[in-house]
Amino acid sequence: MFNIIISSCEKQGFLRKLGSENRLKLGPVGSLLLQNLKTEWHNNMVINKENSVFLSHDDDFSNTFNFVKNMCSFKLPFGIAECVKNKRECHNNKNEMDFEQFFDESIILRCSMLVAHTDSTRFFYQWQRQRKMWWRKFSPEPGRYFLTDLKTDSNGTQTVQIQTKYSWNSQLIETITLNPLPKDLDELDKFKEGKKTVQCHSVVSDINIYTMFLNTICDAFTDSEYKGIQRTVLRFHRKLAPYKISFAISSAVTTASTLLDLNDLALHLTRQLRSVHLSTLLLPICSKISLDAQWKLYDQLGVPYNILLNEKTLKDGLVLLRSRDTTLKEQVHVSEIVNYMKQLFENY
Amino acid sequence: MFNIIISSCEKQGFLRKLGSENRLKLGPVGSLLLQNLKTEWHNNMVINKENSVFLSHDDDFSNTFNFVKNMCSFKLPFGIAECVKNKRECHNNKNEMDFEQFFDESIILRCSMLVAHTDSTRFFYQWQRQRKMWWRKFSPEPGRYFLTDLKTDSNGTQTVQIQTKYSWNSQLIETITLNPLPKDLDELDKFKEGKKTVQCHSVVSDINIYTMFLNTICDAFTDSEYKGIQRTVLRFHRKLAPYKISFAISSAVTTASTLLDLNDLALHLTRQLRSVHLSTLLLPICSKISLDAQWKLYDQLGVPYNILLNEKTLKDGLVLLRSRDTTLKEQVHVSEIVNYMKQLFENY
Repeated sequence: MFNIIISSCEKQGFLRKLGSENRLKLGPVGSLLLQNLKTEWHNNMVINKENSVFLSHDDDFSNTFNFVKNMCSFKLPFGIAECVKNKRECHNNKNEMDFEQFFDESIILRCSMLVAHTDSTRFFYQWQRQRKMWWRKFSPEPGRYFLTDLKTDSNGTQTVQIQTKYSWNSQLIETITLNPLPKDLDELDKFKEGKKTVQCHSVVSDINIYTMFLNTICDAFTDSEYKGIQRTVLRFHRKLAPYKISFAISSAVTTASTLLDLNDLALHLTRQLRSVHLSTLLLPICSKISLDAQWKLYDQLGVPYNILLNEKTLKDGLVLLRSRDTTLKEQVHVSEIVNYMKQLFENY
Repeated sequence: MFNIIISSCEKQGFLRKLGSENRLKLGPVGSLLLQNLKTEWHNNMVINKENSVFLSHDDDFSNTFNFVKNMCSFKLPFGIAECVKNKRECHNNKNEMDFEQFFDESIILRCSMLVAHTDSTRFFYQWQRQRKMWWRKFSPEPGRYFLTDLKTDSNGTQTVQIQTKYSWNSQLIETITLNPLPKDLDELDKFKEGKKTVQCHSVVSDINIYTMFLNTICDAFTDSEYKGIQRTVLRFHRKLAPYKISFAISSAVTTASTLLDLNDLALHLTRQLRSVHLSTLLLPICSKISLDAQWKLYDQLGVPYNILLNEKTLKDGLVLLRSRDTTLKEQVHVSEIVNYMKQLFENY
């Protein structure tokens, strides 16, 4: 199954196999997906609703910590988010089907929350729930995501993993640890809570961005048969989809001038949609191949909405908006389509 | 002047001096600024209004090119955007005051537009104008940005630079080149325009992200004196500001319970603002130090809007919204503040 997914996604530019060694590299469509994943992580972790989180540049945790400590007047909690880059280490004891084994480098998105010792256990459990919900929010099959049992090592560090269940195995996608003695911190750091002095614990979330990438693809992949026709769809959450909207022009158009007008209209709408930062796909083939062939392509790219223009559009100004998930089409007027799309993609 | 800017920004966590060698590293506030710059580049270049641009992952131009060529059915124009990472090369002939000399690594944001040879010159000039306008859009002093004269080298490559004029020197911030023979392309690639075959030229924009970072800071920095009081402000465009909104609680609050209520209100509003992905700063000092000291801090951080809560807020639900640029305050009702802020930050 995993290999079917990889082959299908290779064709669509999500990724590319390197040689024979089971190594993968991102393609252009995959790069957009990765970008969207990073943005959502940033929106959830750095612009963190509950606590103030500060972003640390490459490998600069302790300097950031010292700066933030003063900025927050020694008051907990606060967080530090960072992006940790490593060459992938070779773990021989790991399963070769683990997502992280497929990429040569590893980029860890890490968020360390520094919490008073009196509050750390409550926070640890609350975060586990919140993080699981975050993954589920973006998934077409939320039931896949689960928390593993708690493990405690000899230093008192507690670890919980968020994993995804697939037909072939379970994949680790996020590790959450509670460290009673954060190693990067000076033991002398004293924090205040009201008038008491408290000790600082850290609760750390680690996500490998390439694992997140492969997980998003495998989670979204569905391969169904309906009336004898195979249908492959990547059911990305609309916030993650590399392309939000694509265009199709009905191939039943009769005259060349009508076709030209419809192409101009598609170009005009594309510009408007891109002006509001919606990533829109407009391909030259959109007026050349049959609609069925186009739906097939756009479904495999995981485009949530397709706008269909036909001869009638030039007369009554109505376009058909096709949803990837329902395959149903609704009529929308050309003048309203941009605002309507903006609203659809604003919400989660 | 440059050194004054650096010292002032070092205090506020934008950057940090490394040793004596004139090397800089990004601080936590600077990391947020860099992130915003990348996002704006992505919105303008990758989600490109005029042409389809595809995002290429690390160092993979020719593979991306081959994929995109097929996806676009050999029709020009299209673009490829990428992020090129290098260790900084030591150019002894360069001015040591050049922004790019201050960082150890260089990250080039590159966008290559592939254009038919019949169209490339028109496109080259149009892009120069558009790019200059893009820089000016974000600048509090748009007059600083100018295009240099065109240079042509022996291969026929034409180069134009966008520079910024400062009191100490002029800084190169973007290079735009027109290459008649793009070096990464196979000469055999034939593209179609209608029924004719056309040659492929490339127009390339290169921006060093650290140069962009320092330029944004220096451009935004103003140091003015009003009634004998020195006022340092970073006048960031609201899309670029690391923090969009900050909170202040009037120090004239009399009772402890009122203060607690106001703190709760600030926390509640912060959560709401962060839910709509507005980066909001809520510091413990916001109820501890005088308003003037707070305005000074927030101005030096370049926060465009500050929300002031006072005793009256609990009675009539009105907060004061202070603008960094005008220092004027307007009254807004608590229930409207989130939507109002959302609108302010949506527009350019």
